[in-house]
Order: sequence, then structure tokens, then C-alpha cells
Amino acid sequence: MKKLIKNGTVVTATDTYKAEILIEEGKISAIGQNLPSQGAEIVDAKGCFVFPGGIDPHTHLDMPFGGTITKDDFETGTVAAAFGGTTTIIDFCLTNKGVPLKDSIQAWHDKSKGKAVIDYGFHLMIGEMNESVLEQLQSVINDEGITSFKVFMAYKNVLQADDETLFRTLVAAKELGALVMIHGENGDVIDYLTKKALAEGKTDPIYHALTRPPEVEGEATGRAATLTGLAGSQLYVVHVSCADAVEKITEARNKGFDVWGETCPQYLVLDQTYLERPNFEGAKYVWSPPLREKWNQDVLWNALKTGQLQTIGSDQCSFDFNGQKELGRGDFTKIPNGGPIIEDRLSILFSEGVKKGRISLHQFVDITSTRVAKLFGLFPKKGTIAVGADADIVIFEPNIKRTISAETHHMAVDYSAFEGMEVTGEPVSVLVRGEFVIKDKAFVGNPGSGQYVKRAKYGSELSSDQDEKLTI
Amino acid sequence: MKKLIKNGTVVTATDTYKAEILIEEGKISAIGQNLPSQGAEIVDAKGCFVFPGGIDPHTHLDMPFGGTITKDDFETGTVAAAFGGTTTIIDFCLTNKGVPLKDSIQAWHDKSKGKAVIDYGFHLMIGEMNESVLEQLQSVINDEGITSFKVFMAYKNVLQADDETLFRTLVAAKELGALVMIHGENGDVIDYLTKKALAEGKTDPIYHALTRPPEVEGEATGRAATLTGLAGSQLYVVHVSCADAVEKITEARNKGFDVWGETCPQYLVLDQTYLERPNFEGAKYVWSPPLREKWNQDVLWNALKTGQLQTIGSDQCSFDFNGQKELGRGDFTKIPNGGPIIEDRLSILFSEGVKKGRISLHQFVDITSTRVAKLFGLFPKKGTIAVGADADIVIFEPNIKRTISAETHHMAVDYSAFEGMEVTGEPVSVLVRGEFVIKDKAFVGNPGSGQYVKRAKYGSELSSDQDEKLTI
Amino acid sequence: MKKLIKNGTVVTATDTYKAEILIEEGKISAIGQNLPSQGAEIVDAKGCFVFPGGIDPHTHLDMPFGGTITKDDFETGTVAAAFGGTTTIIDFCLTNKGVPLKDSIQAWHDKSKGKAVIDYGFHLMIGEMNESVLEQLQSVINDEGITSFKVFMAYKNVLQADDETLFRTLVAAKELGALVMIHGENGDVIDYLTKKALAEGKTDPIYHALTRPPEVEGEATGRAATLTGLAGSQLYVVHVSCADAVEKITEARNKGFDVWGETCPQYLVLDQTYLERPNFEGAKYVWSPPLREKWNQDVLWNALKTGQLQTIGSDQCSFDFNGQKELGRGDFTKIPNGGPIIEDRLSILFSEGVKKGRISLHQFVDITSTRVAKLFGLFPKKGTIAVGADADIVIFEPNIKRTISAETHHMAVDYSAFEGMEVTGEPVSVLVRGEFVIKDKAFVGNPGSGQYVKRAKYGSELSSDQDEKLTI
Amino acid sequence: MKKLIKNGTVVTATDTYKAEILIEEGKISAIGQNLPSQGAEIVDAKGCFVFPGGIDPHTHLDMPFGGTITKDDFETGTVAAAFGGTTTIIDFCLTNKGVPLKDSIQAWHDKSKGKAVIDYGFHLMIGEMNESVLEQLQSVINDEGITSFKVFMAYKNVLQADDETLFRTLVAAKELGALVMIHGENGDVIDYLTKKALAEGKTDPIYHALTRPPEVEGEATGRAATLTGLAGSQLYVVHVSCADAVEKITEARNKGFDVWGETCPQYLVLDQTYLERPNFEGAKYVWSPPLREKWNQDVLWNALKTGQLQTIGSDQCSFDFNGQKELGRGDFTKIPNGGPIIEDRLSILFSEGVKKGRISLHQFVDITSTRVAKLFGLFPKKGTIAVGADADIVIFEPNIKRTISAETHHMAVDYSAFEGMEVTGEPVSVLVRGEFVIKDKAFVGNPGSGQYVKRAKYGSELSSDQDEKLTI
Repeated sequence: MKKLIKNGTVVTATDTYKAEILIEEGKISAIGQNLPSQGAEIVDAKGCFVFPGGIDPHTHLDMPFGGTITKDDFETGTVAAAFGGTTTIIDFCLTNKGVPLKDSIQAWHDKSKGKAVIDYGFHLMIGEMNESVLEQLQSVINDEGITSFKVFMAYKNVLQADDETLFRTLVAAKELGALVMIHGENGDVIDYLTKKALAEGKTDPIYHALTRPPEVEGEATGRAATLTGLAGSQLYVVHVSCADAVEKITEARNKGFDVWGETCPQYLVLDQTYLERPNFEGAKYVWSPPLREKWNQDVLWNALKTGQLQTIGSDQCSFDFNGQKELGRGDFTKIPNGGPIIEDRLSILFSEGVKKGRISLHQFVDITSTRVAKLFGLFPKKGTIAVGADADIVIFEPNIKRTISAETHHMAVDYSAFEGMEVTGEPVSVLVRGEFVIKDKAFVGNPGSGQYVKRAKYGSELSSDQDEKLTI
Repeated sequence: MKKLIKNGTVVTATDTYKAEILIEEGKISAIGQNLPSQGAEIVDAKGCFVFPGGIDPHTHLDMPFGGTITKDDFETGTVAAAFGGTTTIIDFCLTNKGVPLKDSIQAWHDKSKGKAVIDYGFHLMIGEMNESVLEQLQSVINDEGITSFKVFMAYKNVLQADDETLFRTLVAAKELGALVMIHGENGDVIDYLTKKALAEGKTDPIYHALTRPPEVEGEATGRAATLTGLAGSQLYVVHVSCADAVEKITEARNKGFDVWGETCPQYLVLDQTYLERPNFEGAKYVWSPPLREKWNQDVLWNALKTGQLQTIGSDQCSFDFNGQKELGRGDFTKIPNGGPIIEDRLSILFSEGVKKGRISLHQFVDITSTRVAKLFGLFPKKGTIAVGADADIVIFEPNIKRTISAETHHMAVDYSAFEGMEVTGEPVSVLVRGEFVIKDKAFVGNPGSGQYVKRAKYGSELSSDQDEKLTI
Repeated sequence: MKKLIKNGTVVTATDTYKAEILIEEGKISAIGQNLPSQGAEIVDAKGCFVFPGGIDPHTHLDMPFGGTITKDDFETGTVAAAFGGTTTIIDFCLTNKGVPLKDSIQAWHDKSKGKAVIDYGFHLMIGEMNESVLEQLQSVINDEGITSFKVFMAYKNVLQADDETLFRTLVAAKELGALVMIHGENGDVIDYLTKKALAEGKTDPIYHALTRPPEVEGEATGRAATLTGLAGSQLYVVHVSCADAVEKITEARNKGFDVWGETCPQYLVLDQTYLERPNFEGAKYVWSPPLREKWNQDVLWNALKTGQLQTIGSDQCSFDFNGQKELGRGDFTKIPNGGPIIEDRLSILFSEGVKKGRISLHQFVDITSTRVAKLFGLFPKKGTIAVGADADIVIFEPNIKRTISAETHHMAVDYSAFEGMEVTGEPVSVLVRGEFVIKDKAFVGNPGSGQYVKRAKYGSELSSDQDEKLTI
Repeated sequence: MKKLIKNGTVVTATDTYKAEILIEEGKISAIGQNLPSQGAEIVDAKGCFVFPGGIDPHTHLDMPFGGTITKDDFETGTVAAAFGGTTTIIDFCLTNKGVPLKDSIQAWHDKSKGKAVIDYGFHLMIGEMNESVLEQLQSVINDEGITSFKVFMAYKNVLQADDETLFRTLVAAKELGALVMIHGENGDVIDYLTKKALAEGKTDPIYHALTRPPEVEGEATGRAATLTGLAGSQLYVVHVSCADAVEKITEARNKGFDVWGETCPQYLVLDQTYLERPNFEGAKYVWSPPLREKWNQDVLWNALKTGQLQTIGSDQCSFDFNGQKELGRGDFTKIPNGGPIIEDRLSILFSEGVKKGRISLHQFVDITSTRVAKLFGLFPKKGTIAVGADADIVIFEPNIKRTISAETHHMAVDYSAFEGMEVTGEPVSVLVRGEFVIKDKAFVGNPGSGQYVKRAKYGSELSSDQDEKLTI
């Protein structure tokens, strides 16, 4: 059914203007003043911004980790995402050496199908690189529309790949048209430091941070960037937490290397002192890379402002404090890494970024949605408000204040990483392909209504329903 | 009269989509598929991109320089600009010490009124800074809508201001809401080197380049950036020509300073060897800063790509070879500095930038138009294609090839800096506030139809005719 | 008379060894084990290091400044220097525009002659550069043996030279064989900031520091370094106080520029908080450049260790607190800049540097003596312990502890900048050209026994009494 | 027997002076003018410099590599070294996983004993790091006096250690007082690139260079430096060949990390084009890291001048062209890496460095001898001319010209890497512990007269025969 969004202020990565948006068949068909309203459901956006739906490039739903499994699955996770203004996620599909890639991908389809309430795609983890894997990747890209590969430089003896695997992946990605993503920390050094800490009886959560200092992140990031330049390939550094890594990304970009960086809300507003909270509460704040000294936050914000970093992901990877995070009592290495963030990504960036003058409103849209869509082959179907695009839309009240709390959030987790934090601005209604998922702050969607999205190759655009585009 | 642009591919700094654009009362009123066409003149943009009109932030029309005067005035200059796809220019209003600023501004109004065929605004040169000037600046901003001030760090004993003047201007600009622009070269060193060269009998055009080496540009740029950071103010570096200056701008931005940089087409495609051309032809290529060693071009292109530099200006400042450039035969310091570029800015950036894969189509729009509008207080009235914006529009055929030549260009000058260069892509039709100035490659405008535009303060937006915008 | 120093541990910029030193006719004639002692006065250095006498490259004795005059003259100043282990100083000879250079130099000879108890040379201030000055410099170098010129980039309208003067001086120095020294602060910015502070009623000593922030030092230092590179000349940056300036010097050196840097004891151990001391005591710590935030100390120490900085000067420029520093009560700009340091230079560097493991014993000698001698044309006559060198020798007890205090120091000033600071290590006896000036911690010298030293051109060595040296 | 060296100009890392040197019992006992000559053999050094004997920190004598063995053993190698002015070498003792370290060391003693004509010590390769190795290292240091460990970051599946081994070695070295040395190239990337090149039929010597680009050296060097900083340990980077690596070492040093760098003569005067020489001659110039583009030479020279690099090693690792280098015809990976350099190290540094004004005479001595002695625990027994030091002395004629050639060199190899190169300056006579090894350009030594030298821990000095030194 047609919808006409009226009275709102439309904001894209470039523009701000008052206009009506006409939605037909799930897509935006017109934008203008005084559009014909007959036959259309009127949606009043008065006093609100109308943003393109957020795209979260970094989630781990229903994922096994260290003997347990993330609390949020594709249902609770995507419902929470929708509440937070996110209309598409890209989740990480894990793989195992020797197992056919299509089996791993099928497992991820099984997890998501019938559950997701917003659209979703997958990244693929690469743990080994040989002729067989290389061959399978053709189909991964062409048939599955998975055009981004993740390589872990940390988690020794578990997920970690060596430099040869990383380099081969970069070379392959260049040829195939994929974007390589890295977890950039030097796993060898971390492995030594954690063993040493445990041997010295240092078992509290704070040692998680102290055994993976910023230098190991800067080093691995710089190494991957150098290899990318050598391969003439493309790299996306996930969850950048500190100045050391920003510096390496910037150096690489200034040399002309095709290197991109993502940070996460937690690194922008929380810091290392959270890991020292008493009663094992520090465990709630265990991410890898860890929270850093507070001064790094200024560097990250400025990097978003100047474009040294380009996107923000949630790195959603949620575990209950009770029963899950607690596995690490007496041994910080057993604390499941990660936290519940998927719902708070836009709120925090808007409140701390736009409202506090650190980034512009347009940068907010670019960072949370448009740039993600462009980097990961979802554009122009997703990531903007323009004629012909999917009507993935967030109606956002910018001046409302609310306090983040586990009591009110929609993630299936028993704590919030931002408990008690007051933020300004909140999504009122959220549409995916023209249908309400959130309406007047209530969930009105259906599990399974979210669609899997095949993505275009790196550097190209998804074909649309329209006449052939003019190409350059 | 209403117009409806059909069949084109609309391109903004963010979006690319096929849609129709409805123009009413000089503004864009709707964008969509199958818009109602009754009463509207149909403009067929088939096979074309539909860009927001170019905004040239750096022109010198009808300007006295070294005993002569630039060849192009506000009529020939803006006609040529329009042919090149530019719909707004910001020209530099010179001032003299002790002369009331409003007199200088009036002189510029006198030069432009009744002549310009596209819209225009003014930057104001600051040659001295004292209580009286400070007082006058209030009115310059509020009454004249001139919100950018230019300080020269070179041209000793002519235009050059000392560091105290620069610093006071930065402090004033911060308080008043203006953007400070610098010509960044160390005039003291240049003065010495040029005198020394002449004394040694080195009089050919190439010595223009050799007596203002990249180090003096890097130095002055870095100095101004440091002063900007100290003042907490904002800086825009015009005509960046070399790696030395890019590096300083980047360092400043990475420290969180509000510093921006512009380059020009000539620095992107020409190089220092042009000054060595025989028969005094080198004089055609005398700009300040001068053309550089060719490798700097890669640095400049990459800086545009990564956002270290943000805009492109023409630095239009044209002189005939015969009779004007020739003043410098036997003494390179007497060669009038500058060249005819206003018409070629978009063509060169599109052909060398977009077509050769150095920047994206969206970056092209941002660099030539949107970012300029945002930095100089013209947005969202100018600089984009969005509902409510002025219908300043370029219909651009992307695959046509043509050869740049003085025989075919529309500037009033007897040579072209790009003579014989083949470019791909050309404006077909150009509209300013909904009226054709160029139609099917022919000039159809009227001298005097261009309007003077008062600009918003730095960091804010021009108020529009619409209901009050939602503010953050 | 012959002397034989026995039982000591000789330390040079390279070597440490136990040996006897035979002194004949004011020079070192032999170094060895079991040297013949007949006819020689035996000097027992048991338990002591035997260092080459310190050379202080930066003193202002008997100098007018801001309506007053430094308290220490060439007698009290050199006596204090001798107590501190310094056997040669190079003092700054001020000049005035239009006054013949030889008159200015004669004035400095008049101040020093008959007073100095250690050897001394002069640097020459350059305040203007024109044909006449250029001509006079020939004689300054050849007849006076003054081979280093100082240019002030700060003290606007008093000492400050513009960039053209600096650049011309660099060019002249290259041709003549002199080393250019700069006071590296941007005087224009400081002038504005100080006036602004006073206008705002900010008159306390701390505003001296706050109105000349590290950025203005970094900027001026970088500017001078760039100009040096352009001129192909040589530069020595005096009194480097902060990371900003170290960075610029390092960049220049890494590019192959001939740039050197000096720091001072005060910057290594005092910090900006000293200027906040109550009861106007902050005035005691007013230097230009000012004391900095404490973290800069680590950068300076590391720069000495790695060779980014090469020397240490005292910048001796002493004023009584009572009657002199007090001139600035109610107006920090009237506080005479400078302090009493000449006596403490070696003690502080030894105690805080060598004893605390920040620099090696050899670096201590190099920084306080050898490198200074080499840079300023005093080597190998001065600056080392080697056969043929002047017997300028310090016998230094390394493990003795003492507390610095105005009550015990030998400068003519009523306070100490290091009051109450405990240092380890102290000169026991000091010889200049083989004669005791300090013996067993008592002054035994004679005013006027110090000799004026003509210095070799930059990059060359003083001719010695020996047979012609082998040249490369 | 006593010797008295007369008429020479003694040069140390600090001093230049004319004096006589008295040698008794292999050590320097006095330095002076007119020393008593009775009972002493007079050595006339007229017209010559008298240098401390060179110390080569980087040799591979009698070493197996890729199925062959280096041509020069401890006899031919040390004879050639002596001809070149080197009086001590430190050779690399290889190890194998699981083999007791003392067995490996014994093997190296067996190779050298009875053969060496100059003094020598060993570095120890570390290929694995575990509790057993850690335990053995105590004895390696205390009993064998081996205080430097080498870790290979390249040669995958042969010598390459992973980051954990490197990091553990750094931690161990810090505790034990050893200096860690790295071969800094990323072996994983090289492994991929070489396999790819061979698969593409690229088998010529030039591909050796192209498959190990400077980026892999810069990356590995930066990685090791970061790990060193984290461990608070000390690092020495061998055979630095390019700007990329210099930059990383400099960054680390400027951060206060204890990182040092060595380059080699070949990188200072040869370049990558040598590998393209026809008839497989390129194989003569196959080193790892490879020769680089010529512009890197300026960076290396400047790094020696400013102290970013501190030493020069030969990386002597010689193979005949016929029969050995030829193993790589048709497959560049089979070319034995290395060349004959041990004899030419001082000549090239003197001729290209000192004579051409790139470094000073004192720096020459420091780089070739003194600094090496200090870093590797040989000082003050070796590395200087001072009372008490071993009489390891080179009498060097500075103005003689000669042409390097395989026909005249003393290495056992059938080609010279510097064939036809004219150098200025040559050792005339060379003494080791007071005995001539080379006298008037003829070999007069005895195989086996060279002594094994146990070295002091990193940062400390070898105890001497003298009374206890004064310690700080």
C-alpha cells in the first residue's frame, strides 16, 4: 500500500530539506512538496527527521563463542536493531577449516530464516586460503552475494590466520571484487601476555585490557594495511578502538591505499576504567579490542569527522552477565568477549556526535547508513532516501531525552553497557521496504519478514528495478 | 514557467538515480517517477547526468594586477563559466589600506551588476586589521553577506599581510562567523629569491617556478594552520599545488583543527615543465603558486579522494598572451600571474578524475559544487539537487569527446592553458534558478540576469523560503 | 708549570679509562699509565671523573634587557661558571640597527676584559641584513673569530627580525662559514596574545607561559628549519623547550638539513606549574620560551639521548627577584626574562641525566662540552681530553650529594631557580689552560685571566700549535 | 714487545690529534708527544690516520646455506677482513630446533679455532623459545659470553620464527642482558610472492628483488620495533636497506624505544638495477634484503649522519659465481643469498662517506668500530684508541687510490661485488693486540692467532685488567 510521509525534515548524507516522501511497492517513488495523497496512508513526521534506515555492518547473532552462544539471535537481535533505527544488518558467518563454505553459509541461513524482522546479509570468515577455498569463493560471491571476507589476526590457535592467509585473501579479493575485513590485533603477543598474566595470578577483567594494549592493535592494523597496498587490494578494519590504529589507517589512505575503518559506539563513550568496576562488573565491558584510555575518544571522534574512519558498527555480540560473562570469574580469558550494542548505535552517535557538535547531521547519516551501503554493495537499494531506493526509513524525534537501561531495552540480555546514560533523540517509527516494523515506538513487525540481501561486488552498485542507469 | 527535466540520471554528492525533476518558480519542487507534466516545459536529459550547477569559489574577474587588468570581466567570465557548467562564482573583492570596506565592496558591485549571467558572491581581502576594520566587518557580514576573508601571505610590499594581521583576522573570523582564506606562500623568501634570480640574469618564465619552491608553500600553509589551531578558528587554503602543503593541511585536520584545502585544475594536469616552453610560451603557465613537478599530481588526486582536500577552484585570472603576459619578457616578475580556467574546471575534473577512476561521480559533485556551497554559506539554496533548492542545474553528456582550444572557448583570452587537450564529457544545457543560460550548447542568457547572493555565516545555512527547518 | 693528574678516571665523549694526564704549557702533552712525574705538581683525582671543561654556548652577561641589566657580569658570571665546571662560555653580543658591528663587539670586549676568569667567545646578534652588514661580516669572522650569528624571531618591535632578514642571514652564513642561531618563537602571535591578556586583566606570571604556547615555538622552529633547507645553510636552535620544536628539528634533520638543537637545564627539570607559585614567586621562573607542561621533559631527555638535540646551554640571564623581577608585578610583560643557571648546568645534567640513566656518561661530556666545541669552532683546542688540547679540565666527584641554594651558589643573584633541589656529583677542581681556577672547591683564579677565543669557521677546526694535521 | 707508533694522526670517534702511541703487552699504555722510545719497535705512521681496528658485527663464515656453504671460512675470511682494516668480527652461530645450544656453539668454535687471524665473537640464532632454551641461555651468556641473539622474520619454513618466539626472545633478552637482532622481512608475503613469480615463469635474478619489496622490510622492522617497546627490551636491526625501514627505526627511537640499526656497504653504493645485469650476472648482487632503488642511498647516508642508523656490517656471506651462484639459473630462489664484502667495508665507507663529505671522520670510526664495540659488549677493550684498550689498530693512508677487483682482493671468491670501483684510502698496516697482521700491505699473521672474545652483557662494559673503574 502507498504511504505518504508528510511534514518531516528529510536528511541524507548530503541534503536536509522539508518535503513529502511517497512510497509505492516498498520503494520511494517521489519526493516533493504537495505530492498527491490519494490512496496513500499518511504518515505524519512533524517535528522529526526522516533518515535512511541504519545499516549495521558488524553483528554476531546466534554465534557460538568460547563454549557458550550469544544471547541474541536473529529474532531478538533484529527486533532490538529495529527499535534502534537499524533496518539492515550484515552478520558474520563463521567457517571451519575443511568444511565446505556453502555448508557454513547454509547454517547461517538456517539461523536467520523465519526470524529476522529487518533485512540482512552475511560476511564470510576466511580461516584458510587454498585452491579449494579460492574456487568456492566464486560461487560465494556470484550465487550468495557475499562480497566481504573476514580474517582474524588474533585469537591464536582458534580463529587466527597467518600473514600468508591474509595476503592470499587480499589478492583473491582484488580479483573477485570483495572487501577484506580484519580483526586487527597481534594474537601472538596477546597470547603470551595473557598466559603471563594468568601465571602471575592476574585474573580480573582489567587484565583483559592490559594484556592487549593499543600497540598490538596499531601493529596489526599497520601490517594489514601494508599488505593491502602491496596486493593492490582493499581493506576494511573493523572495531578500531585507539589512536594507534587510526594513525596506521590514515597513513595508508594518504599513500593511496584503499583502506577503510570502522569504530563502535563503545569506544566512543566508554573507557578502560570500566573494566575495573567492582564485583566482577568489569566483565560487562570486555570487548576485543578492549576499551582504551579516555583520550583516545577524541581521536576517534575527530577521525569520523575528517573521514579517516568512515563507519560505525555495533559489534553486537551479547552475553548475559549472569551465567555467561560469569564464566570468566577467576580467569579473565574465559569471559565471553562482546556486548549488547545493536539497539544503541544510532542513539549514541546522534546524541554524543551530532548534538554535541562533533559531527554533522549529514555525517551521522553517512556513517550509520550510506557509507556502509556503498562499501558493502547495498547501494543505492539501501542507504539513502532517493527515488527508486527501498523505503527503509527511520522517523526520528531529535529532541526527546531518554535513559538507556536494561529494563527498557529490547535485547535479550540482562544488562546494558550504557546503563543510566541519558541520550537525546529516538526513533519513533521505522519502516523496512515501506512496511512499519516499529510504529509509534511499538514493535509491529513479523519474524521472518526480513529478507536476505545479496550484495554487489566491491566498488559496484546493486542493479535496480529501473531502466538501465547511465554509466560512466 | 514550470519545467520538467525527464529521462536524466540525477547525481548528487550522495545519490545517483533516474527520476524526473519538477521546477517551479526557479526552485526544485519535486523529484520522482512519472511526475505530472501539465503546464511544464519538458527538458529531455536522455543519456545525460543531471548535476547541481558548479560553484567556483575562486575567481578574479575584472581585477587590476601589476599594472594591467584581467581580460575577462563579469560578462565574458560568467558566460564562459556557464558554458563550463558553473552557475555560481565567488569573486575576490580587493581592498586598500585605509579605504572603507564598503567602498571597495561597492566597486565590486559596480563591476558585476548588469553583467553577470550567473549568480555570484564576494570574498573580501583583508590587508590590515585594526579596530576600525573590525567594526566594519560586522556590516560586511550582516549587511553584505560576505562571510569569507582572504589574507595574502605572499606578494611582499603589495598584498602581503604579516602574521599579526593573519592571526587577528583568524580571531575575528571565529567571533564573527567567517572563514579565513589564505594565499599560502612565504613572500619574504620569494622576494629574496626573485631579486637574486633577476640579479643573476635569470629572467625566463621558468624562474617564476624556481623562485617559489614548494617549501615556501608548505611553510606558509603550516604556519597558517598552526595559527588557526591556536585561535580556535577556521581556515581555507586556496590553490594548493603540492605535496608539502597537502601534508600540512592533513596534519592540522588530524589534530582536530578546522582547516580545509582547495586545489585547481591546472595543478592536477599541468606541471612545471610547461614553464620551460620556448618562445616565451612558458609565460602562459605562470600561476602563483607555480606548477610543480609532475609527481605532485598523484598526491593532489589522492587528497581529493581521501578528503584531505575538499574543493576545486579555478583561480580564474586571465590575461592575453599578447600584450599582457608579454609584459614579462626579459623579467619573469612582470608576467601577470594567472590564467583562463573558469570554463574548464568541471570538464577536466570529470574527464581526468571520474573517467579515469581517481574520484567517484559523487565526489565530483561534492568537490565542484556541494562542499563549496556548504563551506561558503550557500547551502542548501545552492550546491545540490533537492526539493526546495534553487534550480541551478547542469545537464551533462558524459561520453562526448572534445578538444579544448582557444579557438572554441568562450573566455576573452587569446590562448588556452589546456590547448589541444582532449576531454570527455560536456555540459549540454545549464539552468540558473530554473532559466536556461546555456541551451543545447548555445548561450541563451542575458547579461545582468545573474544575482548577487548574500551568504550565511560559516557553519550555518542560508534560510530558505520554506517553513522553519527542524534544527538540532 | 707541569702538572700530572693521577688516579682519576678520564671520560671523553667516547672513552672512559684510568690514566694519568700530563699537562705542559697549558696543554695536555701525554696520557698514560705511569707517566714520568718529575718536575710536575701532582693532582690527585682519586675517586673522581676527569672531564673536559664544560663549554656553555649560551650566556647573557652584563646585558641590558627591558630597562634593567642582568645581575651577573663577566666576573661574577664566570666565577660561578667555573664553580659549576664550565671553562669556556660563548656570550651573545647585542647589536643595534645602523651601529657598526665592530662598535658593538668592542662594547662586549669592554664588558669582559679584565673580568672573566675562564675563556670566552662571542656570538653576534643580527637585527638587519643589507650590503653594509654583509660587508662587515667578513671582518667579524676573519678578524674577530665570531662565527655564529643570532636572529630573533620573537620580541616584536624590539629584537625581532623578519623572514627576509633571517633568510638573508642564512644565505650569508652559508657563504661565510658561520652558524645561524635562532630564538624560535612567533613574535607576532605572542605580541597579540600578550596584549590581549593584559587587556583582560591577566597580569600574573603564569600568563607569560600562556601567551607563548608551544605551538608558536614549534611553528617558528619549523619555519627557520625550512628556510635553512632552502638556503642549503646551517641552523642551531637555542633553548628548545618542548615537543613541538623537537619534532620540527627532527623532521629537518631526517630530510638531510643541517639543523641542530640546544635545550637548557630549566626545561629538563622545571615545568609550567612553577609560574603559578604564590606571592609573585612565579616571576623567578619566567624564561622565553616559557617552562612547559611536565610531559615535555621526557621528550627532551629522549631527544638528547637519540641525538635529535645535541647540546645544553644555560641561557644564563640573571636578575634579582627583589628590584628586578619585581618590575613585572601587575604586568607580567615587564618581568625581565631569564634566570641564574650558569653554575648548575653540569650538575643538573649529571645528576638527573647520567645518574638516572637517561643519558650515558659519554653523552654527558658530548652535550656539555665536545659537541659545543665542534659546532662553534673551538675544537680540538677545547672540548676534549686529548693530546694537544688545552688543559681545560674538571675533576668531578660523582657520588657526593649537595643541595642547590641561593645561600651557597656563587651567582650574584638573590634566588636560585633550583632552590632545595638535591643533586649528586660536584666539581672539586677546575683548570683552565692548566691553571687552577677552582681548587678543592675554592676559587683560586684571577679576574682577567680568562682569554677571548677566536673561533674557526663552521665545519672547520681551530688550527693548533702542532705540525700540520693530516687532512682528508 | 713494545711498539711505538709515531708521526700519525690518531682518530677516534671523538678526537683527532697528532701523538705517539705506546703499546705494551698488547695494550695501549700511553699516548703523547715525545714518549720514551727505548726498547720499542718504531712504527712510522707518517701521512696516515691511526684508527681503532674495525669491528664487523655481521659475518657468516663457513656457513651452510641452501645446500651449499659459504666460500670464505674463518681463515680466508679473517685474512680478508684484516686486509680491509677489520680486527674483530662477530659471526652468526646457527642453531637447530631441539639441538642443545652448546652443541651448536661448539660447532662454531670448531670452525673458527686455529683458523682466525683476528679476534672474533659469536651471535646466537634463536629459532624457538621455550623453557629449555631459556634455561640454556643463562649459560650462553655467562659462560660463553654470547650476549646477542638473532631472530629471523623471513625464510619461511627454514629459519623464520613467529611473533611469539620473537616476543619471548625480547622478554628474555631484557632479563638476561642481551641484544636481540632481527632479520626484518615479512617471510609470509615473500613466500607467496616468490611462488607466484616462479609460477609465472619469472625466474631471473631481478625477481629476487621484486618479490621482496621494501614494504615487507618496513613492515617487519616496524613490527619488531613495536614488540620491543612493549617488552621494554632492546633491538638491533641488521642490514637495513631502505627508507621504509629507516623510518620505522626512527619512529621507535623517537618514542624512546631502545632500537638500533645497521646498514651495509652494498646498500650504500649499489642499487636494484645491478640485479638486471645480463648473463645471469645479476645473481652476484642477490642479497636479502635486496638492493633497492637508488634514491634509498641518500636516506641511508643521512641516517648514518644523523644517528638514525648507528653501525655498518658487511653481512659477509660469500659464494662463488661459478658453481654456487649458478645454482639459481632458471630459478632465482635457488641463488645463494649474500656476497663477499668483509674486505671492503671500511674502504667504501671512508671513500664514499668521509671523502665525499657525507659523514665525518669521527662518525666513520664510530660506525665501523666504536659503536659496534659498545652495543655488543666489547668496549672498552675493543673499539677505541685509549689507554688500557687492546692495541687493535689500523694505520690508514687516506689519499691513496685503488680499484677494487676480484683479481686483487683476498676473499676466496671468484668475483667482487664492487669490481672496478675506485676507492680512496687504504689500510697500510693492521695490528691485533699489538701484533702485526698486515704490515705494509702484506699479510704477516698466523692462522689461529685470533682469539675468541667473550662479550659483556648489553649495556655494560667488559672488565679490564686495570684497577676497578669508577662507576656511576
